[in-house]
Amino acid sequence: MNTGSNMRIGPFEVFYPIEESAPRLRHNVEGIDGSGKSTQLSLLHKWLESKGYGVVFSQWNSSELVKDTTKLGKKKKMLTPATFSLIHATDFADRIERSILPLLKAGAVVLCDRYIYTAFARDVARGMDRQWVRDLYGFAAKPAVAFYFRVPLETAIGRLVTGRDGFKFYEAGLDIGLSDDPTESFRLFQGRIVDEYEKMIPEFGLTVVDATLPVEVQQAQVRQIVRTHLERAKELRVRP
Amino acid sequence: MNTGSNMRIGPFEVFYPIEESAPRLRHNVEGIDGSGKSTQLSLLHKWLESKGYGVVFSQWNSSELVKDTTKLGKKKKMLTPATFSLIHATDFADRIERSILPLLKAGAVVLCDRYIYTAFARDVARGMDRQWVRDLYGFAAKPAVAFYFRVPLETAIGRLVTGRDGFKFYEAGLDIGLSDDPTESFRLFQGRIVDEYEKMIPEFGLTVVDATLPVEVQQAQVRQIVRTHLERAKELRVRP
Repeated sequence: MNTGSNMRIGPFEVFYPIEESAPRLRHNVEGIDGSGKSTQLSLLHKWLESKGYGVVFSQWNSSELVKDTTKLGKKKKMLTPATFSLIHATDFADRIERSILPLLKAGAVVLCDRYIYTAFARDVARGMDRQWVRDLYGFAAKPAVAFYFRVPLETAIGRLVTGRDGFKFYEAGLDIGLSDDPTESFRLFQGRIVDEYEKMIPEFGLTVVDATLPVEVQQAQVRQIVRTHLERAKELRVRP
Repeated sequence: MNTGSNMRIGPFEVFYPIEESAPRLRHNVEGIDGSGKSTQLSLLHKWLESKGYGVVFSQWNSSELVKDTTKLGKKKKMLTPATFSLIHATDFADRIERSILPLLKAGAVVLCDRYIYTAFARDVARGMDRQWVRDLYGFAAKPAVAFYFRVPLETAIGRLVTGRDGFKFYEAGLDIGLSDDPTESFRLFQGRIVDEYEKMIPEFGLTVVDATLPVEVQQAQVRQIVRTHLERAKELRVRP
């Protein structure tokens, strides 16, 4: 269906339920970056449901509180790197406090298509200070596992360029003047983003998946890792 | 006219023009906190204009980008301490980048009724981490002078309670459950805010004005300090 969207560069994360005995978020975040991410997430979602888990999917820009502002700011090109960063952080804080955390407390597995790592990569690519952005999201719960779907930049861009009818202003980083040509700007901007993701692999222990492998091979890896985490979480929960 | 507003607890700051030769903000911020603040700011405004300065006045919550969101969030009581903090930071970033900085570059003196210190005091009083809030506003230009108008808490509250027909939900800190009684909640919340301001006096070198003194005595002090800063700025500018 949405062939473009499954090639976006960005992570996804999996949150596991907060333990009832110890109401802290389990550190099983998974984050992805690379092509095929949304497809993998969708397959994981179905698999977890088939296993009887309560699964919830959370997206960026979905908060009732700020979505109109974000839309307006993008449409009118009013956002600077700082306000772009801050409005997305506001959106994220709203979702995490009013949706993700209550769902986790209720026992759901929460799947996030893009999480704080998206903001870290994107905002830094836009010129914001690396530490400032990390501090900004200091309130965010750490996910259990964060998958990073790695593809060679040119492969990802090649797919994106052919699969899409042009790029949006902020998506292509046209706001920071890397190039007047949207495709070239997109290429340069995504290059910066990928550089940031690569730096985050060791910093945050992102789980790397080779996104050039066949879809089913990637999914098998993802499920194996998620299964291990879920079993470990279950063991911890049943312990006296 | 607006007799209540001149007793709000909060700072105001004065920005002096950025030097043309060195386009960095001069550190002459002034911040105020305490009763009579808006009156003092208004008197200063008129005096600076009479001296031939281009003076601009900047307020909180005035950014086109987010004002509807802030209104909605407050009206529907949707804001948590984190989103309250972030949406105000977004507003502030928008104003500083799209209004204050261009005005300073154009040579104006910018007067701010409340600045980052308001956010620091208010957000921390609401439970946000002290360092997190300071980092959040790391992008903000430091003002030349920041006046803090100090009044005994009970004096300020006494004036506020009698001058006002009730308190707003967030203004009274009713969102954090200090008390169900709005007046008592306001008292407790403002107490926390004043504690934060007191800590900030040495931390940020706020210029303290005794706000129990007659209005004209306070204003004479304010003008004297502003005059000194403006003369110093002028000397620096004419230096070869």
